[in-house]
Amino acid sequence: MSVEEELNSSVQYTPIQRMRHSAAHVMAEAIQELFPGTKFAIGPAIEDGFYYDMELPRPLSPDDFPAIEERMRASIAANHPFEQNRWSREQALDYFRKQDQPYKIEIIENLPDAEVGIYQQGPFLDLCRGPHVERTGQIGPIKLMRTAGAYWRGDEHRPMLTRVYGTAWETQEELDAYLERLEEARKRDHRKLGKDLELFMISDEVGAGLPLWLPNGATVRRMLERYIVDLEEKSGYQHVYTPNLAKLDLYKTSGHWDHYHDSMYPPMDMGHGEELVLRPMNCPDHIVIYKSKMRSYRDLPVRIAEVGTMYRLEKSGELSGLSRVRAMTLNDAHIFCTPDQMLGEFIGAVKLIQETYRVLGFERYSYRLSLRDPNDKVKFVDNEEMWQTSEAALRQALAQLGVDYYESVGDAAFYGPKLDVQVANVLGKDETISTVQLDFTMPERFELEYIGEDGQPHRPVMIHRGVLSTMERIVAFLIENYAGAFPVWLAPTQAVVIPISDEKHGEYAQRVLARLQNAGIRAEVDSRKERMNAKVRDAQLRKIPYMLVVGDKEAAADAVALRLRSNENLGAIALDEFIAQAAKLIAERSLNLWPVSAAATEG
Amino acid sequence: MSVEEELNSSVQYTPIQRMRHSAAHVMAEAIQELFPGTKFAIGPAIEDGFYYDMELPRPLSPDDFPAIEERMRASIAANHPFEQNRWSREQALDYFRKQDQPYKIEIIENLPDAEVGIYQQGPFLDLCRGPHVERTGQIGPIKLMRTAGAYWRGDEHRPMLTRVYGTAWETQEELDAYLERLEEARKRDHRKLGKDLELFMISDEVGAGLPLWLPNGATVRRMLERYIVDLEEKSGYQHVYTPNLAKLDLYKTSGHWDHYHDSMYPPMDMGHGEELVLRPMNCPDHIVIYKSKMRSYRDLPVRIAEVGTMYRLEKSGELSGLSRVRAMTLNDAHIFCTPDQMLGEFIGAVKLIQETYRVLGFERYSYRLSLRDPNDKVKFVDNEEMWQTSEAALRQALAQLGVDYYESVGDAAFYGPKLDVQVANVLGKDETISTVQLDFTMPERFELEYIGEDGQPHRPVMIHRGVLSTMERIVAFLIENYAGAFPVWLAPTQAVVIPISDEKHGEYAQRVLARLQNAGIRAEVDSRKERMNAKVRDAQLRKIPYMLVVGDKEAAADAVALRLRSNENLGAIALDEFIAQAAKLIAERSLNLWPVSAAATEG
Repeated sequence: MSVEEELNSSVQYTPIQRMRHSAAHVMAEAIQELFPGTKFAIGPAIEDGFYYDMELPRPLSPDDFPAIEERMRASIAANHPFEQNRWSREQALDYFRKQDQPYKIEIIENLPDAEVGIYQQGPFLDLCRGPHVERTGQIGPIKLMRTAGAYWRGDEHRPMLTRVYGTAWETQEELDAYLERLEEARKRDHRKLGKDLELFMISDEVGAGLPLWLPNGATVRRMLERYIVDLEEKSGYQHVYTPNLAKLDLYKTSGHWDHYHDSMYPPMDMGHGEELVLRPMNCPDHIVIYKSKMRSYRDLPVRIAEVGTMYRLEKSGELSGLSRVRAMTLNDAHIFCTPDQMLGEFIGAVKLIQETYRVLGFERYSYRLSLRDPNDKVKFVDNEEMWQTSEAALRQALAQLGVDYYESVGDAAFYGPKLDVQVANVLGKDETISTVQLDFTMPERFELEYIGEDGQPHRPVMIHRGVLSTMERIVAFLIENYAGAFPVWLAPTQAVVIPISDEKHGEYAQRVLARLQNAGIRAEVDSRKERMNAKVRDAQLRKIPYMLVVGDKEAAADAVALRLRSNENLGAIALDEFIAQAAKLIAERSLNLWPVSAAATEG
Repeated sequence: MSVEEELNSSVQYTPIQRMRHSAAHVMAEAIQELFPGTKFAIGPAIEDGFYYDMELPRPLSPDDFPAIEERMRASIAANHPFEQNRWSREQALDYFRKQDQPYKIEIIENLPDAEVGIYQQGPFLDLCRGPHVERTGQIGPIKLMRTAGAYWRGDEHRPMLTRVYGTAWETQEELDAYLERLEEARKRDHRKLGKDLELFMISDEVGAGLPLWLPNGATVRRMLERYIVDLEEKSGYQHVYTPNLAKLDLYKTSGHWDHYHDSMYPPMDMGHGEELVLRPMNCPDHIVIYKSKMRSYRDLPVRIAEVGTMYRLEKSGELSGLSRVRAMTLNDAHIFCTPDQMLGEFIGAVKLIQETYRVLGFERYSYRLSLRDPNDKVKFVDNEEMWQTSEAALRQALAQLGVDYYESVGDAAFYGPKLDVQVANVLGKDETISTVQLDFTMPERFELEYIGEDGQPHRPVMIHRGVLSTMERIVAFLIENYAGAFPVWLAPTQAVVIPISDEKHGEYAQRVLARLQNAGIRAEVDSRKERMNAKVRDAQLRKIPYMLVVGDKEAAADAVALRLRSNENLGAIALDEFIAQAAKLIAERSLNLWPVSAAATEG
């Protein structure tokens, strides 16, 4: 968003955003008093709070926050009115020149209007369209959060400003709840848990945005991959493997080079005029497979699926953990069908998504119908009739599914509209996990055909769909969703055998281990020279579902003393019984930790 | 091999190669007579035959072969002696100038010797070191095979010559047997079967050497991958996923850039001085994972495994099916261990290979100890002591395994010696499938450490090992090995249900299908409007193990009439019984097609 867009967008503020925007002004007021000479840039409301970008006479640290907050509370207590004025450009330029506010001057110079908006509360006057609350006393409890560097106008060639983030809520209870959610999110942050639980790593030697999946994370991913591949094969999809790179021309034909060029890796010159490029998406390969033989209406639908790796040239500053990466492996599929089959195939794809969410325990999700921006003829293919037809088809399918949905303009794929399934994360925010997209464009570009009942060639419809999203995104999401305590079937280590004394019970522990492994349970023995309680605590920190403590009594009875990671101690249980119950839960991909336990479902 | 090397290597000819080399001269004699003005280049013996490169006055076709063969047989019948002479360079140059033989002249000009070898049989005189048989009558039955284009000196900027291939054997029986083997190999050729059975495809749009695995081939690959991953996890390996590309510097540190540069893809400029490159091998990524945390002697051995894709810049002219490709996915692992553990880990890796070969039914394999060429300090790291130590260690491990092996100089990896396991293919020729390599070089280059019992840092030893080879190579090998008739557990479609009449038995067929699929058997119903026998024949052509024919009788009895792809008709069998038996064979990864059948093991 440009500075001007941000200024304009303020007019769409909701009541709480308006209050936060006012809080930004109050923060600026406090900083101006505490740090005279500060030059202010812009200070919008954002999700859950506000910020203000500024050039300060000295660096700011969190130690400065209490003093600023105190001044802010004083301004709020003073209950100043927010006075709105309209000044001529000249008057405004004159004022901000005298105040030595170069960023305000630059903004005014870029505004086309003859008049500009001015707001003043107490001693502080700012260039602003508003709107604001009426008086500072209407601003609820505030808290400053952190500072960050931000280039003026997002341009790395312009000065680096200090961005001060704050939040404001209607009530102290809401503020406390928000801070608690943040703390919970911090604990669940997949980058933190990814490190603590040794799930993945990022290496400077390998490169930014190119995560390496450590054995624990790789196990989670492998289990997810096998689950979805088996489910898709059972559902009539045919899995393939296709190469991660292809001739550049393939992506010129597909349209990726035209519409998606900025996100593509640089092509590689292979000599003799041959140029290969890492693929931005898997669709062209699946189209090549569709085209590899003559298809009849009797063969359709053809559902080609792949756990396929693709590449995206994210800027290195935007890379983060598993959630913003430069290489990602998508649970991808493309359905080629007749126009008559389109509706049924679309609905089938949504049902597959619903089934998968049931297994993963996702309950809070919503449907977003993502449409083109009709004014953007560059980002979206320019074919009015296609957009009309396919948007109508999607609406029909959604009506038939009987699900609620909302619409979002500008979020379509370049080749057609799509349904995005938005799952609420631990902060209650929506992330796009699954997507089903209609495409009449690529079948045209690649001249796809099938022979109809009439013996004539017809053009098939293509449906692009992803269920689990990329393995990177889904695992990042699941880490946070489960706070690292994966359901048993996904847990990297499912059981740890803890001998009370390694000398006395180590041999029995090894026999227990062998039995577990034979039953396909991922297990290990903790034979370190540590106290039993320390081993239990370590296993809990590692979120291992089952701790099987073994001593004299258990060895004599071919049993184990079972503790759950939920900290419940279930006492002695015959080993065979434990194995049977655990294997059943794993085979069913149950979300329950144990069948007959108060701790059966974890928080 | 350069022309000069080829000329030199002739002195190492075995008796049959000598005879074939003589046959090449006799072929040249025949062609000189039939096509006066032909200019000859070189004509060595090769495996199973010989060729001669030449510039002909007109293109040659197989239609010309009978006439050439007739002339050759006449020369053989004439029983000319092969007369050897030594001429001075000048005399030889003078002679070949008069004969207008520019290639011979160029060869002589490049030879350092003052004298050159000359052989003459009958009317034909050639520049040659020999050796040859004494008389043309000692040449056995001959046959011309095919022609191909070959650049003079393999240089695409020099003239394109015609290479005429022929073969010669001691007896007619041997020749016939050879031609039969060739015909069998042609039928089993993985490129032909790959197309017939829809296992994989190569696409001009995607690029040479970048195969796309079609659903059938992808199923075979997926079953192999799951088999080896599960076996390795059970054997104490930890599987990871690592990115297909990394910073160029990583491969400078590893030594790949120095020693393997010609086979690497061009680096990609990511801006800001960052260069990424597709990885030539997976080892550096596994090293980065080893280094990601402090390792103690108690943690070793660490066995890091991956089904990892890597990239090799093969010349486009050398690409072929799945066996010579530009992107390949290796069943790879790297073991990091103490020097004391090295022997045991090496032996463990060989035993894992043996177990895998038992499952795949490989019986004819041999062990090749691949050593460096001590004179080649460019291809192999220059560290005399390292080579001595690691070769001695490998010999000790092989002695302890008690297996026979042979040595091959110059086939080592650049970083150390290795054991290659050579499996005989359908032509009886050895292909390297598995490899176990000792590496003291990379632990040094990456400064790997573990903390020993003494509390001090020590350097671990690294073992690189591949069991199944790349998925491309092993599947190419298995296609030819099984002639497309995969063992049941690998067969893309394991059973086809054939209703005698689709109207009458179609419904029962669908119920049978559902039962099969529920039991995890990959099955389909052939409901085409074809006669039952045609469907059985098609299923046999597709090498589907089980054909389940269903009619009135079977529907009434909840049974199926079982036919095997070996063409055995086992008659009616209860559906439950079929499912139980088939599921057991699949779970055991049996090589048997059916337990109680004369056709249990297929030819």
